[in-house]
Formats: sequence, C-alpha cells, structure tokens
Amino acid sequence: MKSRAGILVTGTEVLSGLIIDRNGPWLSERLREAGLDPAVIQIVGDRPGDLLGALRYMASEGYAVIVTSGGLGPTADDLTAEIVGRFAGREMVLDRELEEKIAAILQSITARWPGLDPAAIRVSNRKQAVIPRGATVLDPVGTAPGLVVQPLDGQGPTVVVLPGPPGELRPMWQMAMETDELAAALAGAPTYRRGIVRLFGLPESEIANTLRAAEAAGLELDQLEVTTCLRRGELEISTLYEPAAQPAYQALIDFIRERHGRQQFSEDGATIDDQVAALLADRTIAVAESSTGGLLAARLTDRPGSSAYFLGGVVAYSNEAKSSLAGVDAGLIARFGAVSEEVARALAHGVIERFAADVGVGITGIAGPGGGSDEKPVGLVCFTVAVRDGAEITRTVRLPGGRSDVRERATTVAFHLLRRVLTDEADAELPQAPTAADRVSG
Amino acid sequence: MKSRAGILVTGTEVLSGLIIDRNGPWLSERLREAGLDPAVIQIVGDRPGDLLGALRYMASEGYAVIVTSGGLGPTADDLTAEIVGRFAGREMVLDRELEEKIAAILQSITARWPGLDPAAIRVSNRKQAVIPRGATVLDPVGTAPGLVVQPLDGQGPTVVVLPGPPGELRPMWQMAMETDELAAALAGAPTYRRGIVRLFGLPESEIANTLRAAEAAGLELDQLEVTTCLRRGELEISTLYEPAAQPAYQALIDFIRERHGRQQFSEDGATIDDQVAALLADRTIAVAESSTGGLLAARLTDRPGSSAYFLGGVVAYSNEAKSSLAGVDAGLIARFGAVSEEVARALAHGVIERFAADVGVGITGIAGPGGGSDEKPVGLVCFTVAVRDGAEITRTVRLPGGRSDVRERATTVAFHLLRRVLTDEADAELPQAPTAADRVSG
Repeated sequence: MKSRAGILVTGTEVLSGLIIDRNGPWLSERLREAGLDPAVIQIVGDRPGDLLGALRYMASEGYAVIVTSGGLGPTADDLTAEIVGRFAGREMVLDRELEEKIAAILQSITARWPGLDPAAIRVSNRKQAVIPRGATVLDPVGTAPGLVVQPLDGQGPTVVVLPGPPGELRPMWQMAMETDELAAALAGAPTYRRGIVRLFGLPESEIANTLRAAEAAGLELDQLEVTTCLRRGELEISTLYEPAAQPAYQALIDFIRERHGRQQFSEDGATIDDQVAALLADRTIAVAESSTGGLLAARLTDRPGSSAYFLGGVVAYSNEAKSSLAGVDAGLIARFGAVSEEVARALAHGVIERFAADVGVGITGIAGPGGGSDEKPVGLVCFTVAVRDGAEITRTVRLPGGRSDVRERATTVAFHLLRRVLTDEADAELPQAPTAADRVSG
Repeated sequence: MKSRAGILVTGTEVLSGLIIDRNGPWLSERLREAGLDPAVIQIVGDRPGDLLGALRYMASEGYAVIVTSGGLGPTADDLTAEIVGRFAGREMVLDRELEEKIAAILQSITARWPGLDPAAIRVSNRKQAVIPRGATVLDPVGTAPGLVVQPLDGQGPTVVVLPGPPGELRPMWQMAMETDELAAALAGAPTYRRGIVRLFGLPESEIANTLRAAEAAGLELDQLEVTTCLRRGELEISTLYEPAAQPAYQALIDFIRERHGRQQFSEDGATIDDQVAALLADRTIAVAESSTGGLLAARLTDRPGSSAYFLGGVVAYSNEAKSSLAGVDAGLIARFGAVSEEVARALAHGVIERFAADVGVGITGIAGPGGGSDEKPVGLVCFTVAVRDGAEITRTVRLPGGRSDVRERATTVAFHLLRRVLTDEADAELPQAPTAADRVSG
C-alpha cells in the first residue's frame, strides 16, 4: 500500500482560469515516480482560510506528503509560507542568512533595471526570508526560496513548499528530493520505472481490447499501472512498475508489439518529433503547406539545432502562391483542384527543386469550417513525402474535428509519413533489405 | 457575501498529467459570472473514496453549488453519477426514457462503425441511464447525460454533474443554468459583467503601481474584482463587477487609458488577433519568417476565413532561401548579417513583390539556444512591417526566455507592429490625419 500525497496549487489567477496550471500534473508524475500515490490536485485562490482548509483536508485524509506551488512572492497576497507555518505549528522567524542570499540575487536584477528603488525592493523581499522556524530552505532558482516543513509535533504530513513559475519549481523539486525530511517521508517507498509505448492509427477502444486480451492470456497486469491516453491522434500507453515487475512489463510490450506492430512507432519514450529529427540527421528538408498554414514548418523548427537540416518552407495558401513559390503547374490545379494528390505531389517535388533539398513535403487540404463539398469535405487532406530520386509516399486522409484539430492532426500525419519514408530509405540503404512493400505512391 | 462553489474534476488521466484539464478554469469563470464565488478546483482520480471525500469536504466548507466534470462514460471506472447519488442520499434507478434517448444516439454511431457489436454497446450504455432518483437530466450532447442533483434532505450543496469532453460540458452547463434547481441555488446572487483591458509593452509591476495610484486618487476599486495576468508578453486586466458598479469600472478604464494609452490596445475584449484580422479586411498579406519558423503564418491562418486576406508565406531559414524565395540580395546578408534590420526590410518587401501582396512582414532573429554572439545575442529579433507604397515600420527587440518563448513572443510583437502600421494607414486615409509621428523606418 503506497503512501498518499496531495498537491496544492495556489493563486487566484490560476483558479480564475487566467493561467493554466501545469505544475499540478507535473508534480503528480514526479510523486508517482517517487513511489507515492498522488490522490488529489487542489487549486485554491490566495485566501488564508482556503489554503489552511485544503492543508487540513489533506492531513485528515492521512496524506504523508503535501507539495504546494505558488504564493511565495514578495507581495501581500503571497501567503503560502506563513499558512504552512501555522499548519505545522511553527512560528515565523527571519532567516538572516537567507535574507543575504536574496539580497545578493536582487542586486544583480536591480543593476539591470536602474529605474527601480533598491531600498523598497529590499524591504518587500525581506518578507521572503521569513520562514517557519526549523524549516529546511531550498535555495532560490529565481528570487523565492522553497521550504520543506515537518509538523512540530511530528504528527501529520511533510509539506514541500515550491514557487509557482515552472522554471523555478522543477529544479527546486529535485533539491527537495535530496533533503533528509523528504527522504524520511519516502523511506520504504518503492522506486518506480516508467515505460511509454506510442502508437499511431489505432482507436483507443482497440487498445482496451488488447489489454483485456493480455489479461486473458495470463499476463500479470496487476503488477503494472497502465494508463492510456489519446492525443493529437497518437495513442500513448504509459506504464509505471517496480523494478521487480520488469518481466511483466516486457511481456506486455511484446504482446502490444505483436498485435499492433504496424501502428506502434516508439517503445523507448521517443516522440515522433525525436525520431524524425534523428532520421533527418544527414539530410535536408523543405516543406510546402497549404491547409496547415505554417504549422509543419513551425513544428520542425521547434527543436534547437533544426537549422542543420531544415532549409525552409512555403505556405502556399493561394493558387498563385502554389505556382510561383513551389512551381505547381497551374493546369494541374485547374484539372484536379488545389486539394488533390496531384497537387500534393507537385508541392513536395516543387520545394525539393526550389530549396535543393533532399526531402520534400507537400500538404494541401480543407481545414474548414468553410470550403468543403460533398466530394471534398472539410477535413480532407492530401500529403506527399518525397525523397529526391528515392522513396515517395502519397496519402489522402479525412481528419475529424474543427479547424484547429484538422490543422494539428495533419501536422502529426505528416510527421508519421516522414518517419515511414525515411525509415524505408534507411532500410533500402542496407544491401539485404528488399524494396519496402508500402513504398508506393497514390 | 457571495455563495461559494466548488469544482470537482475527475479522471485518473487528468490527475496523472496525461491530459491537461481545461474544464476547471472554464467552469470557474462561468460560476463567477453567475454570481458565485468559486473557491476551489479539485482534481481526483477515478476512485470512489476520493470522489466522495472531495464532495464531503466541499459540503463541510458550506459551498452552495458543486460542479463535477467527467466520469460519466459507459465503463466501470466511470463512477460519478453513482457517487453523487450516494452523497445526495438518493438511490440509483434506471430512467427508461433516458435509456431510449441514449439508444437512439448510439444507433447513429454504430451505423458508421459496422464492426462494433450493438448489443454489447447497448448493455454497457444502459449504465449511463441509471441515475439518482429525482435528479434532473440534462440531455446528452455526446452520449453521456448530465445531471442536476439536490440533497434528499435539503441540506447541502446542489451538484451539477457534467461529462468531461469540453465540447459536451460547455453546452450542457448552459442547460444546467436553465434548470429550476440551479436557478434556486443562484436566487439572489448578483449578476456580473466582465470587462477586459489589454496592454502590450508594460511590465506587470507597473500595472500594480497604477492600481495603487487609482485607489489613492479615490477610485472605488472595492466594487471591482480586478485580476491581472501577463501572457505572451501581453498584460490582461480582467474585471468582474455588478451592473451598479459600471461607473466605478468606467472610471478605472479611463484612469488606465490616461496613464497607459500608448500601451493599451483593447478595452472591448478584442484580442490582437481579432484586431489584425479586422484591419486586414480589405487588404492582402504575405510574410517572410526566419526565426519564428512558420509560427506567424500559422497564427494568421488560425482563423476561419483567413484565406480571404492571407496569400502565403515563406519560411526562409537558410540564407539561400532568403534570396531565392524572398529576393533578398545575397550581398545584403553578407554585409549586415542574416539577422539585421536591412534583411528584415528586404524580406518584407520581397514577399510583397513575390505574392503581389498589399502588406508584407519580415522577421529575422536568433531564437537560440545556439547562434548568439555578444553583438547579436540570443533573443535579438528584427522586424519589418510594410505596406506597398505606404507606411512602414522596422524594429529590433531583444526578447527574454528560451527558444519557444522567443519564437512565440516574436510572433506577438509582429502582430502588434501590424496593428500599428495598419492603424496608421487607416488614419492616413482620413484627410484630416497628419503623418503619424512613429511611421518611420529604422
């Protein structure tokens, strides 16, 4: 039986929906990996009563650990440290060493913003050095220190107090993990491994069937905590297990691979973006997009270092742009329509020529909500991925959802077609590999 | 004193971070607008004890209304209706009329997926027609009905039970608002208005100063619930107020406009995307991007109907692409560097020519993490927005943050420069308007 843990996210701007909380889910994953059972994420505004009420609720539920996010700033509505002190039965004291540390950090900031009043800042940030007596301080990554606070009477949860900005919270969670207090709270907790399998082109109900079949075939699924999630058209199977359950996990992924080998594209945690970037290592790429409107180029260039292989792209929205920028024959558009496999192919080859690229992608489709017809409905998208003088694939798919869904999913489809073509190319370079069966156009 | 309300989001995949919850913040805004005070968003997994514990906690805090999201599907781990029934002291009964409704909905779905077993589906969905006796049913938008459940003994919160998919939850919330039960719970609650003011180019600390100054100047801020939030470089001031406080709100926005007229770009709720789309109504646009890698084109084409004005774009990552696609003189790149105002200007004018567009945008910068130098550090981005034979603006800014921050913020800067140039153009078309002072290059 694992110890339970709670996550308390504070901030009126989070509660009111002005900011989407990302700390709760992130901390939930970390707590799981640390062998705890995160039972709740609770979001409250900056009100003392609500903060204290939430802490007391979690204590009454018998949680071993509570992690809080936010409310550590210098202004009056930043209350977390004080409320946690009250909850733990500890008085608030000024930590002079911490005060000096914060002062040193602020000095470098005020040097960059000469208009600010250093004395006023110093005073308002002294507040950040007032902590529950006996708490362990986590050094600030920004200007706000974190805390690990145990109940004075030894009865109740250990509270880890972290700042709200994710760039500060994440490294400071690692620091908290190294404190004696958290180590004591985690003593005896099993350590966990997480395995992620990713599939593309499979409905979620199908994987539910597979898990039932695995159970019927005698696999020990009770040793595994399996969660499935569909996002952006990909199915992610995330499994948490103790090291001793490695054989059960191995049996599961063998079972999944056997049934869904064609749909499975990753079992080592790599995303399709990772895989495409690796496959592009010795090649260059250019793209011609219509309905995705720049999203494919934006996603390819999202990675640091992508300029090594990404030469450029054209967003050819108008027919004139398809012709002038990607060299698509205007007659082809007139004959088959702008949304057609013929035009997708011409776009891909057009940018291979224009950019002198090794690989070209062409996308043309109807993102909606307008522009659809019976013959070519909203969601219809044509793709070509081509390698100069090499493999090529052309596909037409109909994607569900609204305009932004169609655009985003089309980008994902393009990545999977890229993977397929580039993997075939890689295979073909090996002398023993036969011509891949699906390396056909149309 | 407003009645308090709680939001209970259920689902192991939300708690574990596989899915980001968007219902909690959305419901929080709606509850506020309905005159309630949403005090907490609580996320729990699909475990009966945790669900019931959360409901009882909210009841013990005296909340008048609880809204739940999720857990209404046909599978065994969908528990919400049953737990809410237990919480309200009501036994579960099969609603035959509802069963027929769900059967009719499922028929049209099974017709599209001929491989599914209709009998099995019918049985598992009968579960969805089992509801707490006396509950009010909200007709399904998908296949799951919603519920409004009052405590049998009349003591405790009214619970609104909604399905998890946002496309179902949102319209069903509107249905819930029209039930007698919720009307009774909201009786006497004040109705609220929400006003949103948006500023660009102002630090968050500055608006805190302004709010303090407004208070010092005698404005009745206690009648207004003001929240400020910085996102994507824009500052959003969202104010909730009762209709009677309209004069106080008007005084506040007058005060903000007077102090920050230059930075304020919206006080009617319109986003910069709305404004730019409106300004482009009678024009065409083309863009040439380097460091933003397609994000500007993607954001411009995110709107339905954008094909009326967006002709296309080029993502000119390599120097060769800048020359071949946007006609940038290679000598200019050699002399001033790819990241320079000269190249930004050449990109903007290049796409005006290539696409025969009315408006052109050029962006070139260093998104990082590599590629920076002392002279041209990471985050440095040069922009030109030009109107054919008209106004033009060129700016160099240094943007903070990591690669994705720099790319996203640069896109926002481009939208604001577009607004500025197109507004100047609109002014210049009026005979009485003088040449705008800031319509200068460089």
